[in-house]
Amino acid sequence: MPPEPFFNLLCRDPSSQARWGRLHTSHGVLETPAFIPVATKASVKALAPEDLWEAHTQVILSNTYHLYLRPGHQRIAQLGGLHRFMRWEGPLLTDSGGFQVFSLGNLVKVKEIGVEFRSHLDGSLHLFTPELSMEVQEALGADICMVFDECLPYPTPFQKALDSAQMNLRWAMRCKARKGREDQALFGIVQGGMFPELREEQARRLVEIGFDGYAIGGLSVGEGKELMFQMVECCTPHLPEEKPRYLMGVGTPLDLVEGVIRGMDLFDCVLPTRNARNGTLFTSQGNLLIKQARFVLDEGPLDPRCSCYTCRHYSRAYLRHLFMAGELLCLRLNTIHNVHFYNQLMADIRQAIRGGCLLELREQLQAGDIRRIEN
Amino acid sequence: MPPEPFFNLLCRDPSSQARWGRLHTSHGVLETPAFIPVATKASVKALAPEDLWEAHTQVILSNTYHLYLRPGHQRIAQLGGLHRFMRWEGPLLTDSGGFQVFSLGNLVKVKEIGVEFRSHLDGSLHLFTPELSMEVQEALGADICMVFDECLPYPTPFQKALDSAQMNLRWAMRCKARKGREDQALFGIVQGGMFPELREEQARRLVEIGFDGYAIGGLSVGEGKELMFQMVECCTPHLPEEKPRYLMGVGTPLDLVEGVIRGMDLFDCVLPTRNARNGTLFTSQGNLLIKQARFVLDEGPLDPRCSCYTCRHYSRAYLRHLFMAGELLCLRLNTIHNVHFYNQLMADIRQAIRGGCLLELREQLQAGDIRRIEN
Repeated sequence: MPPEPFFNLLCRDPSSQARWGRLHTSHGVLETPAFIPVATKASVKALAPEDLWEAHTQVILSNTYHLYLRPGHQRIAQLGGLHRFMRWEGPLLTDSGGFQVFSLGNLVKVKEIGVEFRSHLDGSLHLFTPELSMEVQEALGADICMVFDECLPYPTPFQKALDSAQMNLRWAMRCKARKGREDQALFGIVQGGMFPELREEQARRLVEIGFDGYAIGGLSVGEGKELMFQMVECCTPHLPEEKPRYLMGVGTPLDLVEGVIRGMDLFDCVLPTRNARNGTLFTSQGNLLIKQARFVLDEGPLDPRCSCYTCRHYSRAYLRHLFMAGELLCLRLNTIHNVHFYNQLMADIRQAIRGGCLLELREQLQAGDIRRIEN
Repeated sequence: MPPEPFFNLLCRDPSSQARWGRLHTSHGVLETPAFIPVATKASVKALAPEDLWEAHTQVILSNTYHLYLRPGHQRIAQLGGLHRFMRWEGPLLTDSGGFQVFSLGNLVKVKEIGVEFRSHLDGSLHLFTPELSMEVQEALGADICMVFDECLPYPTPFQKALDSAQMNLRWAMRCKARKGREDQALFGIVQGGMFPELREEQARRLVEIGFDGYAIGGLSVGEGKELMFQMVECCTPHLPEEKPRYLMGVGTPLDLVEGVIRGMDLFDCVLPTRNARNGTLFTSQGNLLIKQARFVLDEGPLDPRCSCYTCRHYSRAYLRHLFMAGELLCLRLNTIHNVHFYNQLMADIRQAIRGGCLLELREQLQAGDIRRIEN
């Protein structure tokens, strides 16, 4: 068990299912709703830990699959665990490896025991099981671990989704049984394709098994926003109020607000970091493409309402120049900005929950005009 | 004229021609001998200004050719000059564009008026003249400008080198005549291929014209160390003691010490930054290739005698992982280290000059064992 109490619900939004909470880990406390930047290979691409702290990052996520293959989880354990290895002192979450393994497509063979796959690095054959996933996550030393699960492509027919859902439950039980460390939390993951009845059943069964938190997985895979949030809505009534809820792999700023409104507490996505590297910046007035010629003499910051390091110190004109010239510095500066934007959005959301004005914040976001109150 | 006095000689090494000095610019003072990291396109690759400050960088160099083409010198002038554009508050040097233009090879046509070349970006035709080079450097607002010169490949026959040397003198005079801003220093550049008599004559003639400092250019082009330092040695007796001397495009740590011993004060080179990105790190015990398997579990810093940000905070094991995984963060961390190493080496050199032990420092460097005294 992680430190008690693992999760405190501090306040509910009267006009939605949104919640403000606190999640306690061995590496500190985080306030929810929270966004989790992705540090796939033990680094949030282009950022140092100081950059993450300065951008008010509360928690980050690393990928079990990648670190298992390189440099290897035993090596990271020998080096004192993932926190120490990558110099991140705050809360840390690891996925189970499931999503990445299933992203390999044809290189994968699913069996009851686990998943056989070939490494994308050298083609070597590996068998990933729920037990191995837990062993790797234990070696890495994450504060929050995820159960190993099969992620289905979209669309998947009902019978396949049902079979997979049932196997996922057995895998979830094996993960819970294998879990050894007391200082790590373990989250179950609701799968079930796009079938409400499967999702509901999964949620209920996972809660019966009992986890420290519950994730909704297998969404944002091409099903569209409406279907995605329909799936969220059929899960949440079956998830306990007093446990944190994590919507995996989601999403855009508006997706985060919509998720929060439906009672979700945690979100991870590569969108802010990947977009930053592609020159797409999130701002309080909507998206900004830094390559556009109109910024060539623009002395203003990316976002006049942003207080991040990049906006305090660099002009759009310089950032555009760096981007057009292929200079590495812009990857870091853009990423700092986008991660700060996401973290600030979550702070705005938490404040809106406390102030009872979350639906107004959603309207502002939809209109591309977030009237930010700096915390 | 730059602020008076432009250059102070503080102390001479009794056992060599090495000098400790101070160079005063509108953007602050730098101590010589000094190394100049290269910010080709208005950014020292992968570094922010804070990284440069923290690595004790005194002065940086940007490339006239690149900034003329993109984003354009008038644009940078409109944005308040290069210092403000790139947020570098310290001394700044711009090359004349000559070296880069001549690096284009077949795209170049040399005439008395100047050099015709095609942009490496879009193939557009440009005529670079001594006057335009000065205009661009004025618009950029560098503290130290360089005269526009023809850089010869190695080897070049005598007659060609002679003709080029004579044209370079005419170009140098045109640069001096065109120079307008009082707050910028202008350095002449000794060329002359690998012919001592041409080098000597060039040095004398440039001194007759009169510049704020003198550079030795056209070296480190494949001629080998012996010939390179022979050329340096035939120039320096003809350069005035009371003016700074700049050995362009040089070099390795040992090259810097050898240059200092021969009376040179300033050095620029892409070696520390480029090597950093290739995973070759300079240390007090010689070069280190971070990709080597022996570092996979090495918890030590790159260099136990280094106090840079990277060495204070990151293990060789993590840096190796980042490099092998292709993570962007290692480009910045490695570059911080190498730039710090070069700056620290220059601080060691200055201290050795003051302490009369520069030749011992050279021996330590040759033996791969710099017994550093932290300043």
